Amino acid sequence: TEMLDLPFLPFCIFLGGLGFTCVAFVSAWCQHWRGGFALDGSVLTFNWHPVLMVTGMVVLYGAAALVYRLPPAWRGPKLPWKALHGTLALAAFGLAVLGLAAVFRFHNNYGTPNMYSLHSWLGLATMLLFSCQVGAAPAPCPLPWAPAWLRALYKPVHVFFGSTILMLSVASCVSGINEKLFFSLKNGTTEYKRLPAEAVFANTLGLLIVLFGVLVLGALARPSWKRPDADSPDSCQ
Amino acid sequence: TEMLDLPFLPFCIFLGGLGFTCVAFVSAWCQHWRGGFALDGSVLTFNWHPVLMVTGMVVLYGAAALVYRLPPAWRGPKLPWKALHGTLALAAFGLAVLGLAAVFRFHNNYGTPNMYSLHSWLGLATMLLFSCQVGAAPAPCPLPWAPAWLRALYKPVHVFFGSTILMLSVASCVSGINEKLFFSLKNGTTEYKRLPAEAVFANTLGLLIVLFGVLVLGALARPSWKRPDADSPDSCQ
Repeated sequence: TEMLDLPFLPFCIFLGGLGFTCVAFVSAWCQHWRGGFALDGSVLTFNWHPVLMVTGMVVLYGAAALVYRLPPAWRGPKLPWKALHGTLALAAFGLAVLGLAAVFRFHNNYGTPNMYSLHSWLGLATMLLFSCQVGAAPAPCPLPWAPAWLRALYKPVHVFFGSTILMLSVASCVSGINEKLFFSLKNGTTEYKRLPAEAVFANTLGLLIVLFGVLVLGALARPSWKRPDADSPDSCQ
Repeated sequence: TEMLDLPFLPFCIFLGGLGFTCVAFVSAWCQHWRGGFALDGSVLTFNWHPVLMVTGMVVLYGAAALVYRLPPAWRGPKLPWKALHGTLALAAFGLAVLGLAAVFRFHNNYGTPNMYSLHSWLGLATMLLFSCQVGAAPAPCPLPWAPAWLRALYKPVHVFFGSTILMLSVASCVSGINEKLFFSLKNGTTEYKRLPAEAVFANTLGLLIVLFGVLVLGALARPSWKRPDADSPDSCQ
């Protein structure tokens, strides 16, 4: 199995490039084919939704999840790395809230119902889980009255839901891109089923997002990339 | 962490019930709202597609993945459990091939292009990975000329792609159900956005599939449910 032990750093650089490519692709899709961005409640406001969701719930979220896998984070006090993990996760959460606001504003502006498609149900479930995760995460550690068993109990729950939320985010992105292409590519010359350039581009974006998610989840699961004390209950500095 | 150590058997019974519910829901959706099943190349042939994919790529696939987590599989020779794992995986693969055939036959019968949507790209990528997995799985063990390092190398690859394929299957199912509801619920009285009973039912099916996938992946990742020798390279009886 040592032959599979690729070093974390080159992987991390590749993953960073892939994450950057995902953000560039979703931005280019919305800018070049969907008319660009605005805050006027039109479909140009909606265009913020995919960009903010991919950037927040996939790329920044993945970066937050991998903080403890950085070899420098294995040594010395854990608190600065916790701060980085928390900052990235909060940034991801903030972008996702703005992404939700963009689609609700667009729908409400046109009288379109909210929350009917499976994409929206899954996306909202993802956001609710992420809210619980963000809300519960700081509780066990700084609170002096949190008993040791609660801290020991909480860590594997946080880790499990951490991976789960990323999986749900990726599934939400895939269903959302698919749905958006069916909405947008309707008229005779650019029908989705004729696979115009936009469809190839956005389908490719979907596959890149899936690849990014799979690589993050795979990196999280690799035993040799975990902190040596990863299985011990968490301590507070 | 011992407080989180729920026993495998009750979990397994719950998961079995959930898998059965997924199959019952997708069958009821296609039978009650989408007109039932046929082999004539019409949309009733298409209806086999969701039923076969959910049953094969999610439920049977999940069962195959969890075989080695059954406590009886921890003791005695591994070969019978390998046979069960392989049989379930092959059954899943067979249903998925029939599920692909159903949608291609329907499309070809109506002159609809194949393989344009992100759902179809992701689904085909999932099937291609599964084909590689099925094709490569028997190779390292029975072949007497497979060197030990190849066997040691192959097992973590098989395990990683095993979880990955399930994730891609779930994302494919979600995007497929979402897409099908937009196709089917179009006219004024039953539009998807008015959330008729069928939409609530099929959206719920989508969330149940996601829950099933997350629970299987969580069970696979639990250290205490792994065979004690899970990290050693595989041996051939």
